Amino acid sequence: MSNYTAPVEDMGFVLKEVVEIEKLCKETGLDSSTVDILDTVLDAAGKLAKEEIEPINKPGDTEGLKIDSSGKVTTAAGFKEAYQHFVEGGWGSLQFSPSYGGQGVPFVVAASVQEMWHAANMSWGLCPLLTQGAVEAITLNANEELKQRYLPKLISGEWSGTMNLTEGDAGTDVGSLKTRATPNGNHYLIRGQKIYITWGEHDMAENIIHLVLARLPDAPPGIKGISLFLVPKILVNNDGTLGKPNDLKALSIEHKIGIHACPTCVMSYGEESGAIGYLVGDENRGIQCMFTMMNNARLTVGLQGVSVSERAYQQALSFCNERVQGVAPGFKEPGPIIRHPDVQRMLANMKSITQAARALTYAACAEVDYSLSSLPTEALQKHQRRLGLLTPIVKGWCTETAQEVASVSLQCHGGMGYVEETGIAQILRDARILPIYEGTNGIQAMDLVGRKIISDSGLGAKELIKEMQSLATNPSLAELVTDRQLRCFSGSINDLEKTVSIILKNSENKELIGKIAFDTLMMAGTITSSWQMLLSLERASNALKDNTSTAEFFSEKTETVKHFLDFILPRYLSNFATITAITE
Amino acid sequence: MSNYTAPVEDMGFVLKEVVEIEKLCKETGLDSSTVDILDTVLDAAGKLAKEEIEPINKPGDTEGLKIDSSGKVTTAAGFKEAYQHFVEGGWGSLQFSPSYGGQGVPFVVAASVQEMWHAANMSWGLCPLLTQGAVEAITLNANEELKQRYLPKLISGEWSGTMNLTEGDAGTDVGSLKTRATPNGNHYLIRGQKIYITWGEHDMAENIIHLVLARLPDAPPGIKGISLFLVPKILVNNDGTLGKPNDLKALSIEHKIGIHACPTCVMSYGEESGAIGYLVGDENRGIQCMFTMMNNARLTVGLQGVSVSERAYQQALSFCNERVQGVAPGFKEPGPIIRHPDVQRMLANMKSITQAARALTYAACAEVDYSLSSLPTEALQKHQRRLGLLTPIVKGWCTETAQEVASVSLQCHGGMGYVEETGIAQILRDARILPIYEGTNGIQAMDLVGRKIISDSGLGAKELIKEMQSLATNPSLAELVTDRQLRCFSGSINDLEKTVSIILKNSENKELIGKIAFDTLMMAGTITSSWQMLLSLERASNALKDNTSTAEFFSEKTETVKHFLDFILPRYLSNFATITAITE
Repeated sequence: MSNYTAPVEDMGFVLKEVVEIEKLCKETGLDSSTVDILDTVLDAAGKLAKEEIEPINKPGDTEGLKIDSSGKVTTAAGFKEAYQHFVEGGWGSLQFSPSYGGQGVPFVVAASVQEMWHAANMSWGLCPLLTQGAVEAITLNANEELKQRYLPKLISGEWSGTMNLTEGDAGTDVGSLKTRATPNGNHYLIRGQKIYITWGEHDMAENIIHLVLARLPDAPPGIKGISLFLVPKILVNNDGTLGKPNDLKALSIEHKIGIHACPTCVMSYGEESGAIGYLVGDENRGIQCMFTMMNNARLTVGLQGVSVSERAYQQALSFCNERVQGVAPGFKEPGPIIRHPDVQRMLANMKSITQAARALTYAACAEVDYSLSSLPTEALQKHQRRLGLLTPIVKGWCTETAQEVASVSLQCHGGMGYVEETGIAQILRDARILPIYEGTNGIQAMDLVGRKIISDSGLGAKELIKEMQSLATNPSLAELVTDRQLRCFSGSINDLEKTVSIILKNSENKELIGKIAFDTLMMAGTITSSWQMLLSLERASNALKDNTSTAEFFSEKTETVKHFLDFILPRYLSNFATITAITE
Repeated sequence: MSNYTAPVEDMGFVLKEVVEIEKLCKETGLDSSTVDILDTVLDAAGKLAKEEIEPINKPGDTEGLKIDSSGKVTTAAGFKEAYQHFVEGGWGSLQFSPSYGGQGVPFVVAASVQEMWHAANMSWGLCPLLTQGAVEAITLNANEELKQRYLPKLISGEWSGTMNLTEGDAGTDVGSLKTRATPNGNHYLIRGQKIYITWGEHDMAENIIHLVLARLPDAPPGIKGISLFLVPKILVNNDGTLGKPNDLKALSIEHKIGIHACPTCVMSYGEESGAIGYLVGDENRGIQCMFTMMNNARLTVGLQGVSVSERAYQQALSFCNERVQGVAPGFKEPGPIIRHPDVQRMLANMKSITQAARALTYAACAEVDYSLSSLPTEALQKHQRRLGLLTPIVKGWCTETAQEVASVSLQCHGGMGYVEETGIAQILRDARILPIYEGTNGIQAMDLVGRKIISDSGLGAKELIKEMQSLATNPSLAELVTDRQLRCFSGSINDLEKTVSIILKNSENKELIGKIAFDTLMMAGTITSSWQMLLSLERASNALKDNTSTAEFFSEKTETVKHFLDFILPRYLSNFATITAITE
């Protein structure tokens, strides 16, 4: 039995009705042919996730990885085969440019499919996730020769990609990294050691394309003296065939609390003659190049939060329906624990958080599609602002709530949850990386208040607030939720507006801003996800009227949204009380 | 380097100034001689915890346990020796009756010492914790012969104890258990299988005394047909020497997410001739007997939450002082990450939650001492009500916050937190059992609203609310915290009062009560711990005036209490908003 079935109905609903994928394709000029076969695509991906990728999740956690003295890494049983089927199915190439072999599908659709991989098997899903980042960085920054040589096989998935930022003394402060790059003819020689390199070495793809941050000789100190290099594991001949191995290897694999089947490597470059690398983008502009991929990677980590939540919810739901224990209120006989009101509360929290996180994440992913389109400048900039604003919120809120949902799911299992055999403990262990990598959530909070609110004088935040206010006063909502619920939502938007004012007023007080950043992030996450939940409900109501949805779906969505408004939305009150307490 | 130093200053302060241990000894008639040497006792325990019990914590996690085919369990290196020193130091016998070899020290003092064992090594600390439960159950329920034969060696720690409740189909619903007991002369023959038996089998003590719930032939069904039996691992001869092994054994050890060095066993009783057991208390009154130990065990699990929080905070503080990364606001050079405001916020959250949880837990433990004393009936009943009310709050709130503190500590470590070598991951894994065992926190929530609020028509809750209101209007507090902070505290008490009214008004609606139980628990925890924090501050101010404390201590306590009031107390707002949203 698989522990995960892709929630294709809710995914399809969010894509079609909330994100309005057809309108998105029209406005962005993206190929809308996938939209016509969206249900088929989601079903096919769901089948691969359930039948091939999920069944190797728990065995992969138990088996882990092997590394030999030469640095060769062997993945857990079945990982290579599942990856092969993923490549053969063309699943890695969905959202990339047809010029290099991609399918030109909207990013948000690709994201919905990726949600399945991470839910089925987070360790495994990280390999294509990193490849996606490499493709983006090369597409946006490399010269045409590098693109021609590397993109097609990265896009197909025959080769995988990595991001090499971190060193022992350079984590969050990436500017202090020490890896060197020396010019050598038409390439560079890279020498240094990188840590925490996800899927840095493995046996699933025939080549691995490392994107490595390093310093050129005489580069300025700090973050302005870092350049980006493409460093293949195996050198590529001019005719595209594979040549000899490059001078790089994995030294060890980290012993982590979770994602045991994902090789998180210490990588060594250039221990002998120097690893051959090629400059991507301009000299000393490595951080900018890397950030083009970091931003989408951050969204995708938020998406992993959705995946974890969905899976954790499904496992809890299934357990609570089967586990018989005690007599619930209103019953005379012992029955499944789902009958107990507190268990129902936990399940409804999990379910509503998951659906809210999905809607919010997909909304942000749609902004990627709009931001990369040829819309007129003003519209384009608005989408870019929205994307910039939502990215740290999605990364922060969806990964924090994923911790909660995974933990509550474990709690629903009682003593069995604490035993590894049950499987939910692995989900919790795996999930714990999410608030850390791609910028800790503390960094996301600083990004939100500093770069996204203060830097544009609150313009993007105010646009969002206005849009939310307009939904709050939409008369159709008054028929769908209670007055109290609508008042709570309107009040939350007002309080968010006040928070933005507080931030702008205190923008010079970095100390104070730093102290309220995390509460602001969580508050913004709670409120924007409530916005997406209410928007979902309004769209579900319309879909019912238009006969594009069922009464069952509408009724379930209504219940879930209302639960979210009563049990989750009020959380912002404590964040806001803290913010006002220390700033007034 | 040890990762834990017992916080003897704060412990001593809470015992002496907040709990008022001297007054407690006078009023309860307990021997006050320990009080005179309290600092010495805390220092000595702290030394044992730091030098012997903590250093085997991480190795124990890595090494785990061995079980051979006969069911013999071997503990990790050093565990047996540390336990031997614990027994030799008389640490296990502190709070027990001198009639059976105990030292007659107040329970709350013993609790403060136990806080150290669990902080140093949760796996190891569970062995004496379970023995304590067995001693309590035997002391309160067994006949004199059993007491004489078993208590002295359990109290000294030469023998350890266990609690055997759970079976595969009988967890939270213990009434459905199937283990049988058949009368056989002066004893009974026990047959059945128990799961999740903490320290069910090991090599640290020469005998293990199992307390086992089982059914007599023709016992009524459900919870009213369960009796409690004392079942020794090795039978004890009439002269007190050890005889032949009983018919019981460990079948296996659970593979858990944490507390790897603690043998959580599947126990089999009576596979051959039947395990010899002795009835403790009356027939069919097993649940009542077990609950006498369960209640204190619940408090002690809350105490483990305090331990985990303290240790997690210490590790984060140490890491953040050492880890150099980035330039903080107001600085020009890279420095330790503790300079960053968001890191300071995380540390202050951890620290203030830990101190609040400690004060609340010790307050509840002091009620154990009062409840067991010979005070006049009215006073005694008031203390028993208070103890009953605080027990689920301590168990629930201190174990939920321990999850948070452990997770935030891991977060402070960044990527290194996710790697097992750093050690903080173990703390998080170990801690995850706390909201589950001794009654899940969902059960604690139902206990609070059902047995502790509804059953006595809110009497105990109203007494507590009145006492908190009296502190809120204490004029001396107005000089110690801001008006806004005091208003927030007063407001929280009013909202708690409203919540109690809501519960009493809806007491027949079990469905609704079940839905708001957990929010009520968390709200009550946040508010009562704020009460204990404000009380601590007032007492710290008095201690400064009386020269029994230092200006440094007072200043640090002030900062910590104020942080708690701004960052933690407002959390109750979201619980209260949810409660009102779904009950109005």
